[in-house]
Amino acid sequence: MKTAIITIGDEILIGQIVDTNSAWMSKKLTEAGFEVEEKISIADNAQQIKDTIRDVFQRVDVILTTGGIGPTKDDITKKTLCEYFGTELIFDESVLENINNVISNFTTLNGLTRDQAYVPKDCTVIQNRVGTAPITWFERGDKVLASMPGVPYEMKYNMENEIIPRLQSKYNAEAYVSHVLIVGGYTESNLAIHLTDFENNLPEGFGLAYLPSPRLMKLRLFVKGEQRNPELEEEVNKLRILLGDAILAEKDIPLEKIVGEHLSEQGLTLGTAESCTGGYIAHLITSISGSSQYFKGSIVSYSNEIKCSILNVSQSNLNEYGAVSEPVVIEMVRGAQKALNVDCAIAVSGIAGPDGGTPEKPVGTVWIATAIKDKMEVKRYQLGKYREANIVGASNTAILQLLRMINE
Amino acid sequence: MKTAIITIGDEILIGQIVDTNSAWMSKKLTEAGFEVEEKISIADNAQQIKDTIRDVFQRVDVILTTGGIGPTKDDITKKTLCEYFGTELIFDESVLENINNVISNFTTLNGLTRDQAYVPKDCTVIQNRVGTAPITWFERGDKVLASMPGVPYEMKYNMENEIIPRLQSKYNAEAYVSHVLIVGGYTESNLAIHLTDFENNLPEGFGLAYLPSPRLMKLRLFVKGEQRNPELEEEVNKLRILLGDAILAEKDIPLEKIVGEHLSEQGLTLGTAESCTGGYIAHLITSISGSSQYFKGSIVSYSNEIKCSILNVSQSNLNEYGAVSEPVVIEMVRGAQKALNVDCAIAVSGIAGPDGGTPEKPVGTVWIATAIKDKMEVKRYQLGKYREANIVGASNTAILQLLRMINE
Repeated sequence: MKTAIITIGDEILIGQIVDTNSAWMSKKLTEAGFEVEEKISIADNAQQIKDTIRDVFQRVDVILTTGGIGPTKDDITKKTLCEYFGTELIFDESVLENINNVISNFTTLNGLTRDQAYVPKDCTVIQNRVGTAPITWFERGDKVLASMPGVPYEMKYNMENEIIPRLQSKYNAEAYVSHVLIVGGYTESNLAIHLTDFENNLPEGFGLAYLPSPRLMKLRLFVKGEQRNPELEEEVNKLRILLGDAILAEKDIPLEKIVGEHLSEQGLTLGTAESCTGGYIAHLITSISGSSQYFKGSIVSYSNEIKCSILNVSQSNLNEYGAVSEPVVIEMVRGAQKALNVDCAIAVSGIAGPDGGTPEKPVGTVWIATAIKDKMEVKRYQLGKYREANIVGASNTAILQLLRMINE
Repeated sequence: MKTAIITIGDEILIGQIVDTNSAWMSKKLTEAGFEVEEKISIADNAQQIKDTIRDVFQRVDVILTTGGIGPTKDDITKKTLCEYFGTELIFDESVLENINNVISNFTTLNGLTRDQAYVPKDCTVIQNRVGTAPITWFERGDKVLASMPGVPYEMKYNMENEIIPRLQSKYNAEAYVSHVLIVGGYTESNLAIHLTDFENNLPEGFGLAYLPSPRLMKLRLFVKGEQRNPELEEEVNKLRILLGDAILAEKDIPLEKIVGEHLSEQGLTLGTAESCTGGYIAHLITSISGSSQYFKGSIVSYSNEIKCSILNVSQSNLNEYGAVSEPVVIEMVRGAQKALNVDCAIAVSGIAGPDGGTPEKPVGTVWIATAIKDKMEVKRYQLGKYREANIVGASNTAILQLLRMINE
């Protein structure tokens, strides 16, 4: 059972928008056991749409399309699907009724919206409960094509409630089982070398995927078929032995959420003192809904003046060792605990670049101090040359350093 | 001259990551005058890679691939390209030298990384100055295939510095000339209605693209061919008259960089006091290299306690009006000016969601105060329902509010 996703719309091809839909769809399809063979983005062009569908149907069973079914004149998917499947548009009163239900809350019907009730004659029409563009489902023997809107929440609602259940009832797909490990302290190649034997000895059908992000690695071990769960657990156990403390979490969630869960459980509060990360750690932490339960705030001390005035860093240490130094980052973390009145604190001082590097402290030099009550850890890291990657990398590393302390 | 982008990697097909690369690449190619015909994502599967390249080359002149060239064994693009083009891998000392330069800062060479120096014999090897995987450029008559890493900053660096210049010198693509206006205060549809006559009367070949981002609109007026620059300038003048003060900048640079340039010019310093934006404004400001010239720091006062202790917000105002209120955000902005000793400050307090909304202050309610020395502006905004969009939207709106004050 192979599937393909075709996203239709000029705005994707000229790079005006990032296609986040197809990643979400792929994840849901994969989890449900449907293999996504390919994803294609094409223009609002009738000939290209028809050629692509014809071509892709030679390789897959199911095509899901998004986009091109809005009310404006550049949206031609519905009309083009009629041409492809040799059918015509007819007016459907039940669709009009659904449209009226959907819009009744906030606007009245106009001509363009009313025309959304024209649907292809020879297809199954699925009412779109969250938008005005109906979903169309073309079933021809073993093959299915379903056409959805590109609006993300409309697509998501209809994938979950309509498309995936219908695919599951038509095809008996075997779902993947998988296990995710978040691993710290390895580069991708070092980890791969460490796991060479493990990978070579994986049972038939198993796969191990590496997903690197700055200073962190997500490992996903997977196999098709629920009956293979015991084998999966056995292999995960081997990984646990091989990786030990390097395993930071066994959930596919961001590091900042893992930290948040630990802090909540232990009733600890957190604050940060950030120099080169410029508030990015605070942003990561507060991007998690509910973080106000444990996160109290941050001092972004970009200037030395603020390091002194609010974090109580001593001018003599700044003069003697510079802002990017062990003594200063220690004062910062202790200063943050006090100024923010928190149990745990993270302090970062470094050189993000591109300017500011010296032979002794090149761009990418970062000092990180983490504290939990009286305990403290402080380390120097050497990151890379690029500002953006250094800000993200230093932030991940800092959260990771705190997480390790919590786990100890 | 038609191009296609092929992204290679299981992680995209199973939805583990969102492909942001191809949108960025599409934008750059379009601007450089290269039409992107299609974008395809396929698996780390040799047969599929070869079939797709063969197929796509029947429709386009240039294929750019990303991904699958890392050091681990799931990365098979380089080997597969050798098979496709009938060549073999050979060891290249100059690539090894480049790899050693790239990694020298933070790690030492291991076997897998060393193997990155094996490159296809019959191709042009482009040294990757920001990563260990070399870029390969296969030129066969009129057709070109270039293979790049999937790591975003590596891809971006090499697209800008190597791939696009090489494509421009091989093909005489007529680049677009364009002019970008950053416009505030309009929704997309309001702006489109305001500009209807202007758009209808544009000379042949001209296009106007609307790029909305939360609370901001980027307008890009473009036409192919440098000889049309005088016409472009004429049309831009019309837009200047039509939009007046709503034009915030005439450069395609982020808002936070525009603000930074103004602050530098006027010798003003900036700090922020952030509640619901959680440090994101500070992050945006400090993402700009050189921002330490004008940005001194931030107080992320996620808890009320910190609003009082560091920003000197009065407990009575918090009790009477709540943290998300005009009196509190005014105290925050004045408190930030004082605590951070800055000329200008931005203060934000709001309800990012999904929890915390009330009938009087639903999710998305945001108060923003901006101050330049003695002057101050304070406004209430109603944003949307989604946490992430609210954090970004409130941050953009806040920077915009300050920018308007600076421009007045």
